Amino acid sequence: MSNFRWSNPVTVYFGEDQFQSLGEAVASYGKKCLFVYGGGSIKRTGLYDRILTLLAQAGVEVFEKGGVEPNPKIGHIREAVAICKKEGIDVLLAVGGGSVIDATKCISAGACVDFDPWDFIAKHIVPEKALPIVDVLTIAATGSEMNSGGVISNPETNDKASVRGPILYPKASFLNPELTFTVGRYQTACGSADILSHIWENWFTLTPPMEMLDKIQETVIKTVIKYAPIALNDPENYEARENLMWASSWAMNGFMMAGFGKSGPSCHPMEHQLSAFYDITHGLGLAILTPRWLRYCLDEQTVSRYVTFGVEIWGVDPDLPPFEIANRAIAKTEEFLFETLGLEDNLTALGIGEEHLEEMAEKACGARGFISGFKRLTPRDVLNIYKMCL
Amino acid sequence: MSNFRWSNPVTVYFGEDQFQSLGEAVASYGKKCLFVYGGGSIKRTGLYDRILTLLAQAGVEVFEKGGVEPNPKIGHIREAVAICKKEGIDVLLAVGGGSVIDATKCISAGACVDFDPWDFIAKHIVPEKALPIVDVLTIAATGSEMNSGGVISNPETNDKASVRGPILYPKASFLNPELTFTVGRYQTACGSADILSHIWENWFTLTPPMEMLDKIQETVIKTVIKYAPIALNDPENYEARENLMWASSWAMNGFMMAGFGKSGPSCHPMEHQLSAFYDITHGLGLAILTPRWLRYCLDEQTVSRYVTFGVEIWGVDPDLPPFEIANRAIAKTEEFLFETLGLEDNLTALGIGEEHLEEMAEKACGARGFISGFKRLTPRDVLNIYKMCL
Repeated sequence: MSNFRWSNPVTVYFGEDQFQSLGEAVASYGKKCLFVYGGGSIKRTGLYDRILTLLAQAGVEVFEKGGVEPNPKIGHIREAVAICKKEGIDVLLAVGGGSVIDATKCISAGACVDFDPWDFIAKHIVPEKALPIVDVLTIAATGSEMNSGGVISNPETNDKASVRGPILYPKASFLNPELTFTVGRYQTACGSADILSHIWENWFTLTPPMEMLDKIQETVIKTVIKYAPIALNDPENYEARENLMWASSWAMNGFMMAGFGKSGPSCHPMEHQLSAFYDITHGLGLAILTPRWLRYCLDEQTVSRYVTFGVEIWGVDPDLPPFEIANRAIAKTEEFLFETLGLEDNLTALGIGEEHLEEMAEKACGARGFISGFKRLTPRDVLNIYKMCL
Repeated sequence: MSNFRWSNPVTVYFGEDQFQSLGEAVASYGKKCLFVYGGGSIKRTGLYDRILTLLAQAGVEVFEKGGVEPNPKIGHIREAVAICKKEGIDVLLAVGGGSVIDATKCISAGACVDFDPWDFIAKHIVPEKALPIVDVLTIAATGSEMNSGGVISNPETNDKASVRGPILYPKASFLNPELTFTVGRYQTACGSADILSHIWENWFTLTPPMEMLDKIQETVIKTVIKYAPIALNDPENYEARENLMWASSWAMNGFMMAGFGKSGPSCHPMEHQLSAFYDITHGLGLAILTPRWLRYCLDEQTVSRYVTFGVEIWGVDPDLPPFEIANRAIAKTEEFLFETLGLEDNLTALGIGEEHLEEMAEKACGARGFISGFKRLTPRDVLNIYKMCL
């Protein structure tokens, strides 16, 4: 029996033709814009110049804050907030992937308060005001372009956690699949693993929601499994890029998980500790964790969901015994992530050892002391899963 | 290559628990409410009293305008507009199916202008202002609860056409599947035919959109085909009712058809003439038209889409010759609509003869002189399809 509330206020401009409206969309929210971006790849691809031209044509005055890093850091956000306050910025333009958009959400809220923006995260303050955000997505991965959360890291305390609130939805998101033609193999693979993780973490539940949503999730999983390898091997394949891009938004905008009951993310809280302590790529951490998490949660109570997973997603013979189907499904998942996508399959290879695992397992379980996902995980469970990843 | 803009501002409250928030949601938009409903079934079911209680608890002053008919009539809308103006109504509550919500959209715009509300339709005026609308959906069918159009009839001129504009999106829609337990077999069947028509009219295209959307449409078609018969035979089956209800909203809220290119509705414009001239139930007219339209459009150019339809939706053997698959798929469609759902399979049985068909065919093609759907249809084509339905 489903009970949920659904709304999503983001206006999406999808495709190259729609991209022409960027300047006018930004201008509709303000005339003094802080242009936030990452490490400079947008300068190499020419996107930076193109955007400045569109903004100039719309009469928008532009200030800049480049240099947002993967796993965006609070120090950089504080600097951007100071610019907003000093210059009287009235609209933010985020150009990049999830890290840039997440950082921009925190900047947008920080610009409207007198306290340190890290307090939104550390003190769980829900922002009440924020500057309007327009974004241009350049990597299909996190879904930040169509949701109201942002994940921020604090290297001083090894914390990585989120700021969230309805005011943080972008006003407009520009999704132009052509802008992802230049995303390399590794980032395409990590982004695809992130999209899949968003869906899998909800889809693996003991209380499936209405069938329409259940089957739509399976459809999007199959879409990503089909198109991620195509995008890896043929980066300018528009069909692959448009499917991955729209899948990334819908995997994490609330629609597909509406009514999924008490389930919640499992791999994401575990991964956030990996990124917080070791600054690894989020999607890579998820890829390493996911098959171990699936193995760890497999038991008599959960096996029927693995059977559906094996049969519907991976085409495993439905006449095999349930645990055989489940194990084959997990093996197929590993094969996809580590062979087809070519991602590293263990933490040891990333230089991660046992040194912080206990502390990370505690932190992953947060103040409640457990992760309430597919199966409830205690710090001991999380520690076991981390060790399986070494 | 997809280019589209997507946004949908409706907040959906789904399920019985969420229904408790109705009074407070209405009150957030105003304190003087016009409560619009249909033929009085909500009084028999107790919903009317329940809503008055919720509104009273929220301190909302209630005015009433019941009696909205199927294929809602402009005369009734004019009366409601007069009440809005006289009483200074500031929020509208629509309780019913698509007819009630469509009528309420026209009332909401009519209340904000000095001219006759029929002018929105006759003169193609896009409303710029409208009173806020909250609705409680009682039949899964039209999708009006999550879109910005309303279809209105004018019996004096035998016209049936739409008013539309972004201002007409409901602010909040309450979707409580339990409220559809009392919908009878015939209306459940007609509603399901309407949902399927909304998807089929887009899905049958020579330029399919990105695969994710294509496959999501197929998923929702299969959902309706599975659950409509269950709801017919077991009207209080929550699982069936929740799937049909959420399918109705998503079949017609713009998401699934975004990027479907130049395709557009075919059966809907043809059906609107049937309802305008003979006041028949919209979903019934669609059910009668759809298989004839499919037969009429089948040719060498279009057959491949029918093959996908047959194999993916109806489980037809993919090794058969393409036209054999297509014809079996159409036969399966007929069997579903006329046997499983039990709908009348021809217009003659409804008392419709040849007398107005030429005029209706002209009107269905509108000022442009053709219908630009799956295949372009001229008035001559439409006339042929109408005759196939006799």
